[in-house]
Amino acid sequence: MQKTIHLVNRPKGTPTHDDFKFVEAPIGSPEQGEVLIRTVYISVDPYLRGRMNEGKSYIEPFKLDEVLSSAVIGQVEESKSDRFSKGDVVIGSLGWQEYSVVKENEIRKVDHNQAPASAYLSVLGMTGLTAYFGLLDIGKPKEGETVVVSGAAGAVGSVVGQIAKLKGARVVGIAGSDEKVSYLKDELGFDAAINYKTENVYKALKENCPDGIDVYFENVGGEIGDAVLPLLNNFARIPVCGAISGYNKAERDMGPRVQGYLIKTSSLMQGFTVGNYSSRFKEGAEALAGWLSEGKLKYEETITEGFDHTIDAFLELFEGKNLGKAVVKVSEIK
Amino acid sequence: MQKTIHLVNRPKGTPTHDDFKFVEAPIGSPEQGEVLIRTVYISVDPYLRGRMNEGKSYIEPFKLDEVLSSAVIGQVEESKSDRFSKGDVVIGSLGWQEYSVVKENEIRKVDHNQAPASAYLSVLGMTGLTAYFGLLDIGKPKEGETVVVSGAAGAVGSVVGQIAKLKGARVVGIAGSDEKVSYLKDELGFDAAINYKTENVYKALKENCPDGIDVYFENVGGEIGDAVLPLLNNFARIPVCGAISGYNKAERDMGPRVQGYLIKTSSLMQGFTVGNYSSRFKEGAEALAGWLSEGKLKYEETITEGFDHTIDAFLELFEGKNLGKAVVKVSEIK
Repeated sequence: MQKTIHLVNRPKGTPTHDDFKFVEAPIGSPEQGEVLIRTVYISVDPYLRGRMNEGKSYIEPFKLDEVLSSAVIGQVEESKSDRFSKGDVVIGSLGWQEYSVVKENEIRKVDHNQAPASAYLSVLGMTGLTAYFGLLDIGKPKEGETVVVSGAAGAVGSVVGQIAKLKGARVVGIAGSDEKVSYLKDELGFDAAINYKTENVYKALKENCPDGIDVYFENVGGEIGDAVLPLLNNFARIPVCGAISGYNKAERDMGPRVQGYLIKTSSLMQGFTVGNYSSRFKEGAEALAGWLSEGKLKYEETITEGFDHTIDAFLELFEGKNLGKAVVKVSEIK
Repeated sequence: MQKTIHLVNRPKGTPTHDDFKFVEAPIGSPEQGEVLIRTVYISVDPYLRGRMNEGKSYIEPFKLDEVLSSAVIGQVEESKSDRFSKGDVVIGSLGWQEYSVVKENEIRKVDHNQAPASAYLSVLGMTGLTAYFGLLDIGKPKEGETVVVSGAAGAVGSVVGQIAKLKGARVVGIAGSDEKVSYLKDELGFDAAINYKTENVYKALKENCPDGIDVYFENVGGEIGDAVLPLLNNFARIPVCGAISGYNKAERDMGPRVQGYLIKTSSLMQGFTVGNYSSRFKEGAEALAGWLSEGKLKYEETITEGFDHTIDAFLELFEGKNLGKAVVKVSEIK
């Protein structure tokens, strides 16, 4: 038997442990064309909160009383597929459970000699690709422009800021602690960083963006997103990636309407999800791996040890506790 | 002497007659390279409200105690320019006054045999071009898609809807009276039209857009814009042209934040002004003139007679009294 995690209630507002339940289940065994995978790392991500609600979004909602899922790194324990051998390290969208039996076409191998396996959940995986395509395809920063990124010390934001620097932009990050602010400036080379918990974001942005804002990479929404609007330059671009500040609001999330600001500056806001770019993942992954190997791209991980703490790691996302990518380490690569 | 109209106060909220003043001034006489123009039609437009505020926008604010201005059709009374003769009908951004002395490069001739002179203020002028570029360059309607337009019976909206029909879209208009709703459906061939003053806009849109909304041409903002958000299809486009509902609000205009809706559907909102497309005006004007001459494009005008009623005509824009383009007729073409 193994442990699995079910969603048992659709959270009202901020999720709590009561919305989840650890359930014992058989491990199962693979049939022809399937493999048995031991879970190594589970990715916990803010967007999963949206899937816990009912109703239409860009991916199906999670079902109640079934196992949750996200991106997972695992190791093949037993293979009945010609494409995988015992010991292979793989990635896939898998259940929150200690072992999974999956079809061979639901997973792909990752090369954990090129980079640590967990990097395929972050800088070389979905969050890195999200940063890459959102910034370059929608944000289109030009040399000398000012790029502001919120959630700047998170898995997506930290890569956005570094790519913007590589493109010659001036980069200002917004994050939620002095530790994160120091990390952005001292480790990642951001030109400025703002602690939204202790500073007036509008004033701090005005001070740190003397030439206005050309690109705002939106990860958080709420009052931080509002503060950017009056500072937009003409033809500014706002890739809208996330709005974590609103994910746990039970009420409709209210703020200043954007139309007037967009008209005054001929600016663009565009929502996106990384899946829109699936036909270009190879391009993005190669660029990210190249920068990583050249030492031009750094990344952090906040690793929570032990499957029993998966829900803790997920809930802590909404407290802003993670620096870089939040992952749960369930077992060791052998 | 002639009458001119000055802005004497920056309006707080909805403008009133007290914000304007009729001032007597000399007519002036042209020097070399200048012409004297008798004002024939004055264009009154919602966007002028924004210029009455202080502060940065896409065009300079009006100055207090100076003559207001907008697009004007006039007739040359006296020319000291080789490029114009007495009797020529011209267009330019001219003062709200009975006569103007202007440099020859501030005006251009219009062919009032091809279309009535006033049409160069509407369907063949700025409002037509605004509709053309906003809809086709940002909205990009495809055959069979659903296009919703607010302010649908106005100068811009009525052209947007008709071009969308020409492109094979299903078109739903939102307007403010039963008379306008009938006009949209019976005269302009819209597939459906909603009276926002008597109907629940969200419910009516849901009913009339069974396949969701692919393009929303935003002219009004406020609660009408809000009602569209939950009905957007994936990859929807929102050209943001105007937000008249908010122009007279003294407080910050508040509503549901858009980020979540944009992310869920990978939708785009883009503010624009027609000036962004100045290098393509010829293309737009030719297309509009072509459709007009083929009878594929209709337009309405609400003409207020007499210079003394210019401010009335402007204020009535915010009461939604105009059908099609609002213009003031100051004198006759001779």
